[in-house]
Amino acid sequence: MKILVIHGPNLNLLGTREPHIYGMTTLEEINKMIMKKARELDVEVRIVQYNSEGDIIDEIQSAKEWACGIVINAGAYTHYSIAIRDALCSADLPAVEVHVSNTFSREKFRHKSVISPVVNGVIVGLGPYGYLYALDYLVNNARVNTAKT
Amino acid sequence: MKILVIHGPNLNLLGTREPHIYGMTTLEEINKMIMKKARELDVEVRIVQYNSEGDIIDEIQSAKEWACGIVINAGAYTHYSIAIRDALCSADLPAVEVHVSNTFSREKFRHKSVISPVVNGVIVGLGPYGYLYALDYLVNNARVNTAKT
Amino acid sequence: MKILVIHGPNLNLLGTREPHIYGMTTLEEINKMIMKKARELDVEVRIVQYNSEGDIIDEIQSAKEWACGIVINAGAYTHYSIAIRDALCSADLPAVEVHVSNTFSREKFRHKSVISPVVNGVIVGLGPYGYLYALDYLVNNARVNTAKT
Amino acid sequence: MKILVIHGPNLNLLGTREPHIYGMTTLEEINKMIMKKARELDVEVRIVQYNSEGDIIDEIQSAKEWACGIVINAGAYTHYSIAIRDALCSADLPAVEVHVSNTFSREKFRHKSVISPVVNGVIVGLGPYGYLYALDYLVNNARVNTAKT
Amino acid sequence: MKILVIHGPNLNLLGTREPHIYGMTTLEEINKMIMKKARELDVEVRIVQYNSEGDIIDEIQSAKEWACGIVINAGAYTHYSIAIRDALCSADLPAVEVHVSNTFSREKFRHKSVISPVVNGVIVGLGPYGYLYALDYLVNNARVNTAKT
Amino acid sequence: MKILVIHGPNLNLLGTREPHIYGMTTLEEINKMIMKKARELDVEVRIVQYNSEGDIIDEIQSAKEWACGIVINAGAYTHYSIAIRDALCSADLPAVEVHVSNTFSREKFRHKSVISPVVNGVIVGLGPYGYLYALDYLVNNARVNTAKT
Amino acid sequence: MKILVIHGPNLNLLGTREPHIYGMTTLEEINKMIMKKARELDVEVRIVQYNSEGDIIDEIQSAKEWACGIVINAGAYTHYSIAIRDALCSADLPAVEVHVSNTFSREKFRHKSVISPVVNGVIVGLGPYGYLYALDYLVNNARVNTAKT
Amino acid sequence: MKILVIHGPNLNLLGTREPHIYGMTTLEEINKMIMKKARELDVEVRIVQYNSEGDIIDEIQSAKEWACGIVINAGAYTHYSIAIRDALCSADLPAVEVHVSNTFSREKFRHKSVISPVVNGVIVGLGPYGYLYALDYLVNNARVNTAKT
Amino acid sequence: MKILVIHGPNLNLLGTREPHIYGMTTLEEINKMIMKKARELDVEVRIVQYNSEGDIIDEIQSAKEWACGIVINAGAYTHYSIAIRDALCSADLPAVEVHVSNTFSREKFRHKSVISPVVNGVIVGLGPYGYLYALDYLVNNARVNTAKT
Amino acid sequence: MKILVIHGPNLNLLGTREPHIYGMTTLEEINKMIMKKARELDVEVRIVQYNSEGDIIDEIQSAKEWACGIVINAGAYTHYSIAIRDALCSADLPAVEVHVSNTFSREKFRHKSVISPVVNGVIVGLGPYGYLYALDYLVNNARVNTAKT
Amino acid sequence: MKILVIHGPNLNLLGTREPHIYGMTTLEEINKMIMKKARELDVEVRIVQYNSEGDIIDEIQSAKEWACGIVINAGAYTHYSIAIRDALCSADLPAVEVHVSNTFSREKFRHKSVISPVVNGVIVGLGPYGYLYALDYLVNNARVNTAKT
Amino acid sequence: MKILVIHGPNLNLLGTREPHIYGMTTLEEINKMIMKKARELDVEVRIVQYNSEGDIIDEIQSAKEWACGIVINAGAYTHYSIAIRDALCSADLPAVEVHVSNTFSREKFRHKSVISPVVNGVIVGLGPYGYLYALDYLVNNARVNTAKT
Repeated sequence: MKILVIHGPNLNLLGTREPHIYGMTTLEEINKMIMKKARELDVEVRIVQYNSEGDIIDEIQSAKEWACGIVINAGAYTHYSIAIRDALCSADLPAVEVHVSNTFSREKFRHKSVISPVVNGVIVGLGPYGYLYALDYLVNNARVNTAKT
Repeated sequence: MKILVIHGPNLNLLGTREPHIYGMTTLEEINKMIMKKARELDVEVRIVQYNSEGDIIDEIQSAKEWACGIVINAGAYTHYSIAIRDALCSADLPAVEVHVSNTFSREKFRHKSVISPVVNGVIVGLGPYGYLYALDYLVNNARVNTAKT
Repeated sequence: MKILVIHGPNLNLLGTREPHIYGMTTLEEINKMIMKKARELDVEVRIVQYNSEGDIIDEIQSAKEWACGIVINAGAYTHYSIAIRDALCSADLPAVEVHVSNTFSREKFRHKSVISPVVNGVIVGLGPYGYLYALDYLVNNARVNTAKT
Repeated sequence: MKILVIHGPNLNLLGTREPHIYGMTTLEEINKMIMKKARELDVEVRIVQYNSEGDIIDEIQSAKEWACGIVINAGAYTHYSIAIRDALCSADLPAVEVHVSNTFSREKFRHKSVISPVVNGVIVGLGPYGYLYALDYLVNNARVNTAKT
Repeated sequence: MKILVIHGPNLNLLGTREPHIYGMTTLEEINKMIMKKARELDVEVRIVQYNSEGDIIDEIQSAKEWACGIVINAGAYTHYSIAIRDALCSADLPAVEVHVSNTFSREKFRHKSVISPVVNGVIVGLGPYGYLYALDYLVNNARVNTAKT
Repeated sequence: MKILVIHGPNLNLLGTREPHIYGMTTLEEINKMIMKKARELDVEVRIVQYNSEGDIIDEIQSAKEWACGIVINAGAYTHYSIAIRDALCSADLPAVEVHVSNTFSREKFRHKSVISPVVNGVIVGLGPYGYLYALDYLVNNARVNTAKT
Repeated sequence: MKILVIHGPNLNLLGTREPHIYGMTTLEEINKMIMKKARELDVEVRIVQYNSEGDIIDEIQSAKEWACGIVINAGAYTHYSIAIRDALCSADLPAVEVHVSNTFSREKFRHKSVISPVVNGVIVGLGPYGYLYALDYLVNNARVNTAKT
Repeated sequence: MKILVIHGPNLNLLGTREPHIYGMTTLEEINKMIMKKARELDVEVRIVQYNSEGDIIDEIQSAKEWACGIVINAGAYTHYSIAIRDALCSADLPAVEVHVSNTFSREKFRHKSVISPVVNGVIVGLGPYGYLYALDYLVNNARVNTAKT
Repeated sequence: MKILVIHGPNLNLLGTREPHIYGMTTLEEINKMIMKKARELDVEVRIVQYNSEGDIIDEIQSAKEWACGIVINAGAYTHYSIAIRDALCSADLPAVEVHVSNTFSREKFRHKSVISPVVNGVIVGLGPYGYLYALDYLVNNARVNTAKT
Repeated sequence: MKILVIHGPNLNLLGTREPHIYGMTTLEEINKMIMKKARELDVEVRIVQYNSEGDIIDEIQSAKEWACGIVINAGAYTHYSIAIRDALCSADLPAVEVHVSNTFSREKFRHKSVISPVVNGVIVGLGPYGYLYALDYLVNNARVNTAKT
Repeated sequence: MKILVIHGPNLNLLGTREPHIYGMTTLEEINKMIMKKARELDVEVRIVQYNSEGDIIDEIQSAKEWACGIVINAGAYTHYSIAIRDALCSADLPAVEVHVSNTFSREKFRHKSVISPVVNGVIVGLGPYGYLYALDYLVNNARVNTAKT
Repeated sequence: MKILVIHGPNLNLLGTREPHIYGMTTLEEINKMIMKKARELDVEVRIVQYNSEGDIIDEIQSAKEWACGIVINAGAYTHYSIAIRDALCSADLPAVEVHVSNTFSREKFRHKSVISPVVNGVIVGLGPYGYLYALDYLVNNARVNTAKT
């Protein structure tokens, strides 16, 4: 079982960028947490970070071939990239949207996600834990579905 | 360590009410999952369900005296109860908002939560798992904060 | 065959409250008209009036067990109680929304009903007759459906 | 006592047009139900159907001369014909607006009626019964008012 | 020199319809005032009244052949008939929009005219005088323009 | 009989300011036309022009003592000066609002007048003639009212 | 002479809840200030605090029987409880709305009160003094009205 | 195979009306182009032009009996005639909406079509060619569908 | 201790202007009530009334030099004068906004005050008493603050 | 004569992605249809597909050097890429916007195209045919223009 | 060459008023900087500050006679004074709008300038430097234009 | 001291693209003016132009390592790229936004910049000079700040 984890624009700066909002954990540390969790759940993860909308779309399209689920923090693209939304629709894979900070207690334009309506669920404001819960959900959910068949 | 778990209006009907939206797990089953998770995390939980806005406010107010965190699925009150929002602010406890279904892929009036801006985080659409992750977050977060002191 | 009739907040004041808007018939007189109509239609009715949103939800939830239809005048809750709307959805019973006055010729905030989209039909501005027609519809409709089977 | 019943644009297609929305009763059948009810109430009805806004206005204007009340289902004109609204105002007759389907559970643009604020009442979603209740109301209401004098 | 004067829907009821808003002068009396003024200004007028949007468009289209100007009170069509607006644009004749009552002190939907942006000017709330001033303007304006050539 | 004519901000520049919009007649020429018309109607006029909102309010307040009517072109204040609107209400005199250009075919913010709802009528886009018609209306209207008494 | 003073949801926490917004005076202290003022004005007061919307409605309804005026701080219900608004309308008693903090310098959703249009007046941001002035107004106003009779 | 082509209000003026917007081809010339194309495609066309909304509805209703598809340029009715939209829905025929000019680069109110959501497709701004492509599409599409059967 | 009391535009007409809205007390009488209250509170007041926005700003700016508080009824400027708002911010003095009538039960544009967010509190609809309570608050509040130091 | 055909993000998935919306024809098949049509029209086409907004802009910029027209289906960028719109403006070439599905019968955010106002025309919902008609239009239009010179 | 520099309401308080927003440089110091820059550029400047909207309009109108350009910081009038906008249009001189603070990172109502669309350019948030750059631009731009002639 | 200058999408076409809006100076010429100014100010500049949003984000991120300030003209991305806004926030460097044309006198969607709230200041409509003033500001501001330390 393989899962794709996508970090969107500016998330490579986590831990250094506005720590009062995003916390002090760096992206590298978060990725280590994700990989540790993946080992516990016995799944493989591919983790990528892109600043470019087109690269994120390419990645989602190719995931269709090999992944069983997607964890995506689309950063600022969350709020306007209908193209990423369409890519997620086309991929037709279980997906969870994650945000490190509580976007609902920040600027009004961050309250709206164009991605949320096309994913299974959304985890907001739980810091790096959000990624771990997303992974856990995708794995457990897949196993339940498999078990049912 | 003690956590309050609040289920709002109509959630007593979970499992029977519109299962294509809310799934087929009953509230009783969810509560069992929560209690099992609580035992694993070695915390105590008080779980309540109310249809009345006033009862939810009373419960949150009293939680201030004894709880270390709140998991709240305010049901339909999520979308308009500023009174519950104010109660959560006053309680001044770590809190996580949970929704069983993906409110963002449903009617437009369910996209807006008046509670989200005053809680730590929000988990939407992950079914009963949302409660478990919320509990996990509150406990881990509290321990980290305690450890820091 | 049993029907639940719910009067919402402040409707206990009918006949005394702003008679130029709501007319001079008291709630007691309306209830007598409803009971007379029920006898004509040979159905049983349970008539309740509550000022509390939670009580109305409780009542609707329990109706699921025994009633064949609901006549509801949710008063001011009509305009914002998504919780009552959800309760009606869950009850999954034929339902008719009634308003004594013509809400569409009054303040703008009374033009919007959050309940209308989830009931079978709506009767507005026909005074106490609205309740009688609602009752008639629920009974006739049920009989037609039964006849079809 | 005479009542005018107006069916607006496309209502001649009732029973054939989108039956999942409008039901399977044809306009002819509805008209028979109306005439039967009229006989029971001992009133005379004139029933017309027009696709043209101007024809509906002409009809309402002439009703002023001979009718005691108007039952109107203005079809799609309901949502924008201020000219029909003005005609109803000028006629200054008791009037009831009827819609066969529940317009509030359909497209958003059908939620708004420019006619509702100037009629006595509105009946929505009760199928052909709506016309019968409207007739009943106009007759009973007129008799009460007459009795008072 | 010939001028077309158009009265829109329901204006045939002037003097009888809601006299507190539209005054007590009948359409016939207004037409007499217009014809008297026309004689004073030495112009010919054709005065029509239609309830149908299509008839008004036909009239405006044909005016292009013979008229030097249009006085139009489009009644309720003022607020939504883009088709009449387009007809006025195509006619490409000097035109003045008239309203007997002060539409700006009435319901909000009467504040917006889709016709105003494509006529030379607008006279609102001056009762029957509005028509006379409109006529006077069209004649004087035409004479000035002719004099210039 | 005395009438106050008020020209608002920047109207002293008429004839020089953007002539493609406002025409080439100067304010002085318009004032002469007004005074000629006044002589014809056998009324006295006081004509003022102010750039300051406060001065316009002062003038309207004092008009209450001596004038029988007000002709006002409030220029740009038309669109936001609730203070001038209030002064006109307090003065409680017949009043006509005039605009030289057709404000409805210009920028969107010029479509809204906060003054229109509190005057008798509005004349827009008829150039200098607007003032003459306004004067004529105030005089005729006053005479009719006097005649009635 | 008797006055009803209603404190809405979460106001029992005054003095402890977010003191930078609501100040440090507890509800008990405010109530003492109110009672002292009542003695000075020689009126009787009944002071209640409820978290439940239904309880507040019940209280207002019963006040109709015995009170000469109402002082109400409806807390968060201020912003959406049309049901409380309707109860105040029905009670038809002089009423003053009070808010301890300046709601207009806080979150946007607190700027709108559905209650303000149906009370005599509103006092916002003057801390506990607001209640005292409200009481003073109700008593003085009543005495003036009585004196007039 | 038979196709109905409907030209809406003011389209009889094509070629003469605002040629910088609509081009210089007259309606007669366009109709000739359509008929030539029809011959090429070996289909029969009925071409009508109406200024009246009611006539267009009548035409669409009768098309149900004999036509295999509809090409409609509803002119200004495009932007508000829900009645025409309903007629198209009822007809339940393949339909293509055509506009000669690019409505999206014109006034804002022309950007919205109430018809577009209920037709198969829309062709905007391609001048008279739009009609030809619409015809071609309807014929080809029908043949594909027939071939499939 | 000195307090500035500012009456804005048209308030010089109080008692004569629309008495059904503003009551029958004249500005002179209100000023006497204010001065009497000032004597009771042992403070000095400077009372001014201006129709001009600029004069009000000048006055507020100079108050910074000598006053301990400002009572301001900015009349219609309340709803749009950001310049007065800025002046109040700059003055940085305790301030209370007063309105004689209940602005929230009047036209919609009177519901919004651009000044409220920058003053300590607001008193609306309590007639002339509002000024007295405002004065009382400023004095008591100042004394409490002084006592604290 | 050379034409550029641009397919935007996710269009490489055509035929596989949500076939109930986009149909079952793959992008490769559509491209073959385009090339066949090009041969018939005797023009050369360059067909590209990009997921990245920047790549589409680069392509449009370079087209200025060599192409006579552009056919563009900008996919999801249609709804927000002002940068692509600007590139099209700068290129200053005849252009037609194409959408395979009827975007007007889908989600609301797909109803708005920021590109439509700057192209010659738009073809929506006609499936792969849209590209062919666009090509036909660009060629015929160019030939007409050339012929005129 | 002469330039007019206008400071609007409350700008006389610069350096003392909310220094965290507007900085600590006083208006006098800014004016010295402007005069020094003017000497360097070899132009004459007239610098004025007014709290009154009417005074600013008067000043702009008279500038038409003698100035080659205008630098204007209209303070709060920026956001609503259409009268100042109209004066600038009429003056028809090169003009630059300056704001000391970054109005776009402050309250929402400061984001909108009614003046910006009618000036050459806008400089926001660069403190006192904004005035110097505005002056530089007006002088350089004028010289380029002169050189061209 | 080093400064980064970023030109966004389509700015490589400056001087050729719509010269009536953007002027006739090419990007190369502007860059020369910037470099000349940089030499005068004795700073080093790196000037880049990208059509891709991702490239601009990458560039801003790397600037954090070496630059003392950023001059950015984000072209069309100005109006929607929250990702670029976030990159600027993270970089936490003094920054000035520049637009060559006056965006406020163009299409409405160009009036809104998502970047303005997070930069120090904005220069709009001053043509190529805008870049020079931005550079000057960044250098002078930095020197003042350094001098203070």
